[in-house]
Amino acid sequence: MDSVAPLPSSPRLIIDLDAVRTNYQLMAILSGTAKTGAAIKANAYGVGLERVAPVLARAGCASFFCAHLSEAMRARSVLGHEAEIFVLSGVSYGEAPLLRQKFLTPVLSTPEQIQLWREAGDGEPAALHIDTGMNRLGFDWHGFDPAMAEGLNLSLIMSHFACAADPDHAMNKIQLNRFSLIREAFPKVRASLANSAGILHGPETHFGLTRPGIALYGGAPLDTGGPALAPVARIEAPILQVRTLRKGENVGYAASFTAPRNMTIATVAIGYADGLPISASNHGFGRIDGHITPLIGRVSMDLSAFDVSLLPSTPEPGDMLSLLGKDLEALASASDTLSYELLTRLGPRFVRQYKGSSA
Amino acid sequence: MDSVAPLPSSPRLIIDLDAVRTNYQLMAILSGTAKTGAAIKANAYGVGLERVAPVLARAGCASFFCAHLSEAMRARSVLGHEAEIFVLSGVSYGEAPLLRQKFLTPVLSTPEQIQLWREAGDGEPAALHIDTGMNRLGFDWHGFDPAMAEGLNLSLIMSHFACAADPDHAMNKIQLNRFSLIREAFPKVRASLANSAGILHGPETHFGLTRPGIALYGGAPLDTGGPALAPVARIEAPILQVRTLRKGENVGYAASFTAPRNMTIATVAIGYADGLPISASNHGFGRIDGHITPLIGRVSMDLSAFDVSLLPSTPEPGDMLSLLGKDLEALASASDTLSYELLTRLGPRFVRQYKGSSA
Repeated sequence: MDSVAPLPSSPRLIIDLDAVRTNYQLMAILSGTAKTGAAIKANAYGVGLERVAPVLARAGCASFFCAHLSEAMRARSVLGHEAEIFVLSGVSYGEAPLLRQKFLTPVLSTPEQIQLWREAGDGEPAALHIDTGMNRLGFDWHGFDPAMAEGLNLSLIMSHFACAADPDHAMNKIQLNRFSLIREAFPKVRASLANSAGILHGPETHFGLTRPGIALYGGAPLDTGGPALAPVARIEAPILQVRTLRKGENVGYAASFTAPRNMTIATVAIGYADGLPISASNHGFGRIDGHITPLIGRVSMDLSAFDVSLLPSTPEPGDMLSLLGKDLEALASASDTLSYELLTRLGPRFVRQYKGSSA
Repeated sequence: MDSVAPLPSSPRLIIDLDAVRTNYQLMAILSGTAKTGAAIKANAYGVGLERVAPVLARAGCASFFCAHLSEAMRARSVLGHEAEIFVLSGVSYGEAPLLRQKFLTPVLSTPEQIQLWREAGDGEPAALHIDTGMNRLGFDWHGFDPAMAEGLNLSLIMSHFACAADPDHAMNKIQLNRFSLIREAFPKVRASLANSAGILHGPETHFGLTRPGIALYGGAPLDTGGPALAPVARIEAPILQVRTLRKGENVGYAASFTAPRNMTIATVAIGYADGLPISASNHGFGRIDGHITPLIGRVSMDLSAFDVSLLPSTPEPGDMLSLLGKDLEALASASDTLSYELLTRLGPRFVRQYKGSSA
């Protein structure tokens, strides 16, 4: 555990690094004979790139995926020189020297990027991104000419599933077939298609390298859930005040909650500036001593109110309310968003504590 | 302008400090004879406490409101010793010495906090928070006993509007009357009730000190808008790829967008990890050279797609798409959230550039 003394009135974010390692190990087992990489973009899905990346490396991960050059440079500084680090946004003018200097591998998505790396890459490896139907980033599979890649030192050819969270979606098979077709032109190059959800689709999507992301951080890969994962992130927010609400009184901005009966509510130091979304207003929940406590009224910037009327004992200022943890998916669902967004938008105001033998 | 060279593939956030100053000046004029403070909590509504606070101080602001002690300490370090800095979460055991040492003023909300500051405050000033109907933080106005504050060196008595964004809401008058009643017991103590919206309600809500927040950062205080404010925050995100979409093809995760005709779309380096919410999927928009460009498909973690079919000329990779700026409220509305949340949840991955003569 880090030795930062949290200020009693501020929320803290507790990251379980052993849980990250456990989740990686599960993804590696489910990846079968394929190597298992890791997506650590967006500050390792919000939980802390500098702390997570070395844990993954010690667990056997050798290939890391970042969105931007800035993230990849942070990853290089904690991973040492042996790790393979991909930059999904590719390369643009001005970035090639830094990519080369830090031995970062651009994932090329356009003819311009290929041209640029051919000129400025000095023969260093590159990856090729084929878009097989997501229509986001990568060469359109339709009409792709493998001759375009001539002269590149290709270390990976990859694509990305659009609908992997729904294993029955017709797009999965279509994308797999398109990717397999393109791949025939690069028989000696390693291939990668599966994200966390794709890993669960079975061996034919695994190719040489899988790239789990959300599963490492405890989020469910499938719309319907998936295998049991260890919770990684938990918020502990202090109760600042406990108050009595008379029937008919309102709570919070725009008076969006009206007490249906006399109630006891707790005002907690957690708000949307910390990442508890406004969409959780009147729908979200936390826990006190394990007991569900419904969020009432509109989430404020720094504060939220919770109904503690039905708890076995009334909490006091200074007691802690928990959020996320094993409730990550349920809170995301109640807030009409995804666990991905809850994690990556955790705010900067937390005291962050890392725990586990890996910490 | 800061001299940070932005990486070409990363989004940047441009903060106009002159706009902050202009908005403060407008709030000060509308505050009439009252002094005008400033809410700088949540990293100055996401735009940068360390850069904004000195600009406000030079514009005449002498009273600053933070949510937590940690924020107040950051404010003290850039504001020097003369500014008055309030901590809205009050004081808890362990925080009193730091509050005293940094001459920070706790806003007391509970009998326990009063007791604590009486014992540990060493006669330093405190503020008193009266809850007049929001049922969030502060002493319940109903049955409040002014004798509780005996022995305190009170520098401010304050309350907060629940429904000020709607000037016609009955709660406003009710809260004003309750606050005025309590205030009679403290005739010599400065009083504060009005946030940005409250300032627009007119002189009777102004008392001795107003506390604008959202208006300083360019967000509309009223549900219906309000006076013209200068835009403060603008995102510039680079286009990574321009692609052709055939009629019937899908875009993004879960294939939530299907092209109704052949289209040209741009994939842009901005995602929900940067603060463009998932709820903006298929509803949000940006601008290229001033022209509206609709967001299509689901916002991804690091990427979003925009329809550029109708632009006068087709953009190229490296061209910039703008978000927020004067569209802050419209984007918030299209994303089913508030400008407050868009601003305070701007992500950590931006290259932040500060501009204006105050920068």
